[in-house]
Amino acid sequence: MKALSKKDFPVEQARRFLEPGPIVLVSTAWQGQRNLMTMGWHMVMGFSPSLVATYLWNENHSHALAVSSGECVINVPGVELLDTVVDIGNCSGREVDKFARFGLDAVPAREVGAPLVGQCHSCFECRLYDDSQVQSSNLFIWEIVRAHVAPRPRLPRTVHYRGDGQFMVSGAEVSRRRRFKPDML
Amino acid sequence: MKALSKKDFPVEQARRFLEPGPIVLVSTAWQGQRNLMTMGWHMVMGFSPSLVATYLWNENHSHALAVSSGECVINVPGVELLDTVVDIGNCSGREVDKFARFGLDAVPAREVGAPLVGQCHSCFECRLYDDSQVQSSNLFIWEIVRAHVAPRPRLPRTVHYRGDGQFMVSGAEVSRRRRFKPDML
Repeated sequence: MKALSKKDFPVEQARRFLEPGPIVLVSTAWQGQRNLMTMGWHMVMGFSPSLVATYLWNENHSHALAVSSGECVINVPGVELLDTVVDIGNCSGREVDKFARFGLDAVPAREVGAPLVGQCHSCFECRLYDDSQVQSSNLFIWEIVRAHVAPRPRLPRTVHYRGDGQFMVSGAEVSRRRRFKPDML
Repeated sequence: MKALSKKDFPVEQARRFLEPGPIVLVSTAWQGQRNLMTMGWHMVMGFSPSLVATYLWNENHSHALAVSSGECVINVPGVELLDTVVDIGNCSGREVDKFARFGLDAVPAREVGAPLVGQCHSCFECRLYDDSQVQSSNLFIWEIVRAHVAPRPRLPRTVHYRGDGQFMVSGAEVSRRRRFKPDML
């Protein structure tokens, strides 16, 4: 699959792609090693700074690279990458280089050492903002320091995990903009 | 709208409904007061105990009730409640009783003081499990102690917020079960 061309995107609007709760690919790098993991446990925590929390299990290879580097990239794949997303979650970065194995482009990021996944629709460069819960709860709070989003498609069709091998694919878009108080948008 | 009849559901499988990232309604109660808020910032954090993290802004009325009681119910509404979901997010529980105002049934929970929302598809009774990040980050880690799920529909059509008044509605379900290593399900 070809990499998607992307543009700079305002970091404070990352919720547009992350808040709906898609499965993401987290890339990490440290001292010549790099890795990629499939992850569904994340949430937005603020706009400015643009914060996102992730749970990274401490037995995952990515956990060690994230702790050592204090950096990662959160990449949002479309449904066309579903089989790859599953396969990435089913092998360990201790044994294989997942970019090579799955034919994914590791595109250099601008602010962090971890690479962007070229084939993903949107990529968020993150720096560790609060590590106080990493040891006790495997909870990382990241600041998104740069965002890259493909202009087309305007929104990716994302996949959302339910456990047990089952995924929901994102469906219709609806607006209720006129129903909101302006300061509640 | 009529309340949905629900059955007990295994708490360790709550991810089936929460991990895809839907907008939820959080109910709280304390000393005769009760409230309901619309929330999109949550993530699963474990199966056993069944943990879920939420971000509750400290200026919300619900924040105070959640801190005082150490309890809440996380309710998953279907798309048929979308207008109600928006309206709940656009008024304050300091001024109105949202159950009465929006014609929602406050069904007594089994383990906690906060009520279930009868019209929601699934309701998760929660007790505060880790409050160490509440003051610093507004981050609550809850243990789901009891789950109630409507058998029909088997899965709700959920709404997922993008900010700016825009929602994604859940779409098709796909299985990749056979592609997983059994211990990775």
